[in-house]
Amino acid sequence: MINVLTEKIRRTKAPVVVGLDPMLTFIPDYIKKAAFAEYGETLKGAGEAIWQFNKEIINHVYDLIPAVKPQIAMYEQFGIEGLMAFQRTAAYAKGKGLVVIGDIKRNDIGSSSSAYAVGHLGQAQVGENAFYSFAEDFVTVNPYLGTDGVKPFMEVCKKEKKGIFVLVKTSNPSSGEFQDQLIDGKPLYELVGEKVAEWGDDLMGAEYSYVGAVVGATYPEQGKQLRKVMPRTLLLVPGYGAQGGTAADLVHFFNGDRTGAIVNSSRGIIAAYQQDKYADYGSDGFGAASRAAVIDMIADINGALDEAGKGRTS
Amino acid sequence: MINVLTEKIRRTKAPVVVGLDPMLTFIPDYIKKAAFAEYGETLKGAGEAIWQFNKEIINHVYDLIPAVKPQIAMYEQFGIEGLMAFQRTAAYAKGKGLVVIGDIKRNDIGSSSSAYAVGHLGQAQVGENAFYSFAEDFVTVNPYLGTDGVKPFMEVCKKEKKGIFVLVKTSNPSSGEFQDQLIDGKPLYELVGEKVAEWGDDLMGAEYSYVGAVVGATYPEQGKQLRKVMPRTLLLVPGYGAQGGTAADLVHFFNGDRTGAIVNSSRGIIAAYQQDKYADYGSDGFGAASRAAVIDMIADINGALDEAGKGRTS
Repeated sequence: MINVLTEKIRRTKAPVVVGLDPMLTFIPDYIKKAAFAEYGETLKGAGEAIWQFNKEIINHVYDLIPAVKPQIAMYEQFGIEGLMAFQRTAAYAKGKGLVVIGDIKRNDIGSSSSAYAVGHLGQAQVGENAFYSFAEDFVTVNPYLGTDGVKPFMEVCKKEKKGIFVLVKTSNPSSGEFQDQLIDGKPLYELVGEKVAEWGDDLMGAEYSYVGAVVGATYPEQGKQLRKVMPRTLLLVPGYGAQGGTAADLVHFFNGDRTGAIVNSSRGIIAAYQQDKYADYGSDGFGAASRAAVIDMIADINGALDEAGKGRTS
Repeated sequence: MINVLTEKIRRTKAPVVVGLDPMLTFIPDYIKKAAFAEYGETLKGAGEAIWQFNKEIINHVYDLIPAVKPQIAMYEQFGIEGLMAFQRTAAYAKGKGLVVIGDIKRNDIGSSSSAYAVGHLGQAQVGENAFYSFAEDFVTVNPYLGTDGVKPFMEVCKKEKKGIFVLVKTSNPSSGEFQDQLIDGKPLYELVGEKVAEWGDDLMGAEYSYVGAVVGATYPEQGKQLRKVMPRTLLLVPGYGAQGGTAADLVHFFNGDRTGAIVNSSRGIIAAYQQDKYADYGSDGFGAASRAAVIDMIADINGALDEAGKGRTS
């Protein structure tokens, strides 16, 4: 799947992932109204509104980008009904040819870590039968528990040819509280990055490893350093746009041939119609507004890469 | 809820939590057979088997202990149907007067962290209505993202009078890879412990804070140190029994009046009937075997506390 993702990034010339993090405030009233008319102002109604919203976004952007990244928290807040919308969204995106990165930040040890991996990337065995449940292609994983927490995911990845992105340096303001602490002169995130590179060596695709890393766009210097620490690691980069990361900040996250990173934007895309810039689309045109925002984002990033003299991929 | 939990620990004289981490291999064949007869060897069949198993365990132990800790990974592996069994288990345990600690190790930032908190501890707003979904009393939280990740949970806790346990020093063999790294001579877990104490000061119950900490029984020296770093923090202690922690290892996790810690055992209790020691109960008597194992565990821990001269609670 890492080879599929890398190939899709090259083909679309769009190192971009759209974050499907639907808050109800992002969803146009007419969609909510229809969903609530059918199911009431209930968790099921919320799930239906999210699903209809996501479907429309996917329909408008699927041909431009390699992947989507649904943030499971936004679904889990609506309980079972929300998680059904997550599952449905993931399946629909895959049906449209998109790679699905489940932003789940799961972590545990031993059999519990295996269970998460099975539920999200693999198949659960029940008697004679095996079932995919959430069936993402990649998931994000939190490394605080060390190798014991990550290896069980890697085993399922090996079997299923799927991948993970391990949190290394996150995009939020307080990420440095623990991640930047110096250990023998080296920040913790770098130590985690070294481990990611080591884990990744055991699970290589053609160019990049099945073990990727999350590194926030809001920390360009750290990204530059981590790019060197993890040369064969695909970086999933949140924090562009709404969180303050710019395209110029991102150039060093990429390798010379403009591979090696995939940049996420969530509300900047899915709630584009709420921005002045895309207001003309109106709430009815929220899907088209998202498409316009994706096109602008791709141009913005490629422009910065041109500027930085990073060669186009063939 | 921290006051309820502390009071329950005192009243039961059992600083013990039973981990409801049902693997299908723990579940007696006759329960699986009945579930599969009704729903087939499907995810729904697995969910039904788990639910019937948990119910029987809860029925046999609820009067002895203050709390249960379902590990959500074990449910999530069976997708939506598994999570329905999780929800049902949590509700049933609460109905039996137990405090429910959701072992979910969630973590994110900003609105995503809030969404997890809402889904597990609070209420999701849909139009005019608000709904509890998974409705645990406490959840575990991973601190790698720093204050931005934890504060949104604390806000929901404040509103709902619920609590969290932050991972500080986990029980697994590789927990030291990152957690033990020295920062100015002080291990990372201690730095995290200091933050937990600081966060906890903002959210105090009568004796202990709504912000608790996870500290593994397998690291007694670290537990002793962390007890001092976080004097008003309730410690949730995994790793007793199957993972190798003994009662003698645990005494320093407690304060002098034998409060301040709650020790988890999962497979040691719920799969007790599979141990030689409790084999006489047979698989039909798995609930009674669990009860016997709980009684033995309480006696074991209280015995060690007696030995260490920690005063009985009144």
